[in-house]
Amino acid sequence: MKKGNTVFFKNKPRISSFAAICGSKEKEGVIGGYADVTLDDDMYGESTYEKAECKMLTNAVSLAIEKGGFKERDIDVMFSGDLLNQIISASFAARDYDFPFLGVYSACSTMSESIMLAAMLVNAGYIGRAVAATGSHFASAERQYRYPLELGCTRPPQSQWTVTGAGGCVITDAKEGIKITSATMGRVCDYGVTDVNNMGAAMAPAAADTFMQHFRDTGSSPEDYDMILTGDLGALGSRIVKDLTWEKGYDISENHVDCGEIIYKVIETEFQGGSGAGCSAVVLNSYVLSKMRAGLYKRILFAATGALLSTVSSGQGESIPCISHAVDLEY
Amino acid sequence: MKKGNTVFFKNKPRISSFAAICGSKEKEGVIGGYADVTLDDDMYGESTYEKAECKMLTNAVSLAIEKGGFKERDIDVMFSGDLLNQIISASFAARDYDFPFLGVYSACSTMSESIMLAAMLVNAGYIGRAVAATGSHFASAERQYRYPLELGCTRPPQSQWTVTGAGGCVITDAKEGIKITSATMGRVCDYGVTDVNNMGAAMAPAAADTFMQHFRDTGSSPEDYDMILTGDLGALGSRIVKDLTWEKGYDISENHVDCGEIIYKVIETEFQGGSGAGCSAVVLNSYVLSKMRAGLYKRILFAATGALLSTVSSGQGESIPCISHAVDLEY
Repeated sequence: MKKGNTVFFKNKPRISSFAAICGSKEKEGVIGGYADVTLDDDMYGESTYEKAECKMLTNAVSLAIEKGGFKERDIDVMFSGDLLNQIISASFAARDYDFPFLGVYSACSTMSESIMLAAMLVNAGYIGRAVAATGSHFASAERQYRYPLELGCTRPPQSQWTVTGAGGCVITDAKEGIKITSATMGRVCDYGVTDVNNMGAAMAPAAADTFMQHFRDTGSSPEDYDMILTGDLGALGSRIVKDLTWEKGYDISENHVDCGEIIYKVIETEFQGGSGAGCSAVVLNSYVLSKMRAGLYKRILFAATGALLSTVSSGQGESIPCISHAVDLEY
Repeated sequence: MKKGNTVFFKNKPRISSFAAICGSKEKEGVIGGYADVTLDDDMYGESTYEKAECKMLTNAVSLAIEKGGFKERDIDVMFSGDLLNQIISASFAARDYDFPFLGVYSACSTMSESIMLAAMLVNAGYIGRAVAATGSHFASAERQYRYPLELGCTRPPQSQWTVTGAGGCVITDAKEGIKITSATMGRVCDYGVTDVNNMGAAMAPAAADTFMQHFRDTGSSPEDYDMILTGDLGALGSRIVKDLTWEKGYDISENHVDCGEIIYKVIETEFQGGSGAGCSAVVLNSYVLSKMRAGLYKRILFAATGALLSTVSSGQGESIPCISHAVDLEY
């Protein structure tokens, strides 16, 4: 069943279990008490940042499977992707398992794209249990997208801090757990922002577009949600998305929360807050879903946002196309 | 309906239309007479290789939509990905359209992953029409994965030539067209190959694994297919996949065809043949599907293969994990 760009799930696939691992800086903040594993050393015992990122993702997947009381053989497929070139964290994590792997990429919207596709396959009755997971690492992202850490570059005030962490969940056809009632597929939005240090401004229009599409398709309005959750717009991007939706007649100011804005304890030192595929992955799969299962939130619209640029596209003078996929969660 | 790793499509989604664009070298070969657009200049009027690649992909998508008699508003979603970092060709192509975009990545298996996911959504009744597309460009791939062209490096004998081209198709719930009867989701296979110039050897085990899984799940055998089609194993990889399946009791030698092995006219000069996401995309969406629609082939098992490495993973001493997703086509 589809209306507009939103697919409705009659069979209500469930998030049966979830797990998150976060880095040493992230554990100081709000998710510290909710993550399953918190690192003291962000190298996680590995020789490279990339291997540490992959290990976090692998262990988040294993933990999510284990916490749901499942075995590896119970899982039908894994959806995952990440920010590293050719999504090596996800691919190398998938190598450790015997179940099929479907690689996806929508930058920092990968968490919601993965949950959406997993829910679509479960709802259709194709599969019974799927893993959706992603992650990121501050040091591997800096090295790939920005400058070597050793260079000690000054960060501009509109910048964000890539989250070191990984999160995953198991989506199943069980009768209990957090319900996924619908999902809105995002369109690529590009408002012409070219500043690669200002992802929040680039991504906000995509989030606004998906929110409003979702409200129209489902006939819901912002006050129907206990939380309208974006991934990593940061403080500036969050202000912009509120403005953009308000201009079109939707007031999300009361219940909009951004994972990037809440993840760090003292947000000022990270300027606009957290970012990266791992940002929404760890906040959703620890703090948010825990509170939801405890009955504190009844309905959440989760729409992570992704900036679909590369160093090459920006180097060639392109602006930053962005996307946001949304899933409607109820408990 | 799923058995093993194979999803069966009761409603038989159809490939309603398809289109392909190929480069100047590719048009000399077998697909030259079947591709919709053949380039004289691989820059395609653009200032960079990456922009040329993106333009090919965009135009292949537009042509596939147009050839099916569809308008942009008829399309519900587009599945696409490509070999460039952060799949910029696909993302920037999607920016030109108003329909949603779901980014996928499985390297050179992206064509079959895209068709599979599109068929899953159409068969479930979520959507009516989806685009599945991918492409690659020799020069952008060389620059990103290997050496600058200007360096004039000698190619080792086991190497392949990345195809310049793009292809796409429209998968619909129509009653006519090429049927997609089932799809087998691939697992990540890694036999420990570390030679990045020998992708055929790295990918062959993944193709063999998916073939055999598909035969077991569907109860079919190699002789049930007019063609068992891989993406870009090349000449050496094709010999290996035949050996690997033969060892396990499946003889695919009679009807196995590899897109990379047939795409170039004089294969010797390209050593093992063509490769890249565009290889299977152009061969499938021109020559193969045209012949199928003309009644020459009744049933084809299409399993493109992807090598899930990056320059970083190889640089850090990792072996090459590979994957292959398969779709069963009937007409």
